[in-house]
Amino acid sequence: MTAPDLKKWDRIILGVDPGTNIMGYGILGIKGKKAEMIAMGIIQLNKIESHYLRLKRIYDRIVGIVEEFLPDELAIEAPFFGKNVQSMLKLGRAQGVAMAAALSRDVPITEYEPRKIKQAITGNGAASKEQVQEMLRRELNIPREKLLPQLDATDALAAALCHYYESAKPSAPKSASSWKAFITANPDKVKR
Amino acid sequence: MTAPDLKKWDRIILGVDPGTNIMGYGILGIKGKKAEMIAMGIIQLNKIESHYLRLKRIYDRIVGIVEEFLPDELAIEAPFFGKNVQSMLKLGRAQGVAMAAALSRDVPITEYEPRKIKQAITGNGAASKEQVQEMLRRELNIPREKLLPQLDATDALAAALCHYYESAKPSAPKSASSWKAFITANPDKVKR
Repeated sequence: MTAPDLKKWDRIILGVDPGTNIMGYGILGIKGKKAEMIAMGIIQLNKIESHYLRLKRIYDRIVGIVEEFLPDELAIEAPFFGKNVQSMLKLGRAQGVAMAAALSRDVPITEYEPRKIKQAITGNGAASKEQVQEMLRRELNIPREKLLPQLDATDALAAALCHYYESAKPSAPKSASSWKAFITANPDKVKR
Repeated sequence: MTAPDLKKWDRIILGVDPGTNIMGYGILGIKGKKAEMIAMGIIQLNKIESHYLRLKRIYDRIVGIVEEFLPDELAIEAPFFGKNVQSMLKLGRAQGVAMAAALSRDVPITEYEPRKIKQAITGNGAASKEQVQEMLRRELNIPREKLLPQLDATDALAAALCHYYESAKPSAPKSASSWKAFITANPDKVKR
């Protein structure tokens, strides 16, 4: 596999949808005011029996993705409510491991609730995963054959695109973002 | 600080008591059938405002401890029940980050419920943290002046000692432990 040409992008955002069975990821490249999908995929966890080997797989794969695509930021889909304390503990661990992988490489993190991501992408916070995928496909001109049967990948890409929309707003908080992201979002504030 | 002489131990167990405000750790050295405290301490998190910087601090400190003391195993205190889904999500993240730090250095993990640890150390699953500390102090001959005001450190050391007791039982599961731990626990099974 040839390494993607990462230098053409002003900014690269990694989106992650952490689940305990399947984890989705999507990499978004920003050039000027244009966003494009660089890659997306899933990390299959449901065939790994050991809870720790699942966490280790998440860590290794996210570190691998960070080292391959060198994202400036991580946007993570993070539900704040769940069915019960057991499932939230498991989800928290999966989120924590994914976050640790990013933090170990100094990638700043922003998290978004699922409703917020759906709202940002489709205009409807209660949209289905299929609707999110269809809007993303049109917005980013993704060829149909590149879509995966698992919607976790487009969910992750949606988190990345939501983060781009949010950070492009004039009121966007700057503190959590990288310097590169800041100057991309605020070219007028930089003396050249 | 001079590096501790780690070669004298047959086996080193890192115990961690992950909390979202204070994280305790304890390092236990095993030589023959004797267990001794090598070090213990706390990672202060409650003065760090950013949730992500807290997680990053946990990751960096645990990686640092693993690299300094080269433990063969991690024993982690892990409650499976909590007040509400919010606190469990936070706790799950802290646990996940601590686990990722160990997994990133290929240290195998075993988790124990608080009740199980108290039972193993004091014979009473409902013992107080002070009782656990006092039993540990006697069992490991820890000088009183080395005890910390924060009981999180002795809680963490208790997790390590609980893991030692458990793995020394004839029925102990071998799969999660390292080969070194296995031969330490089962010298008769090794042909020399």
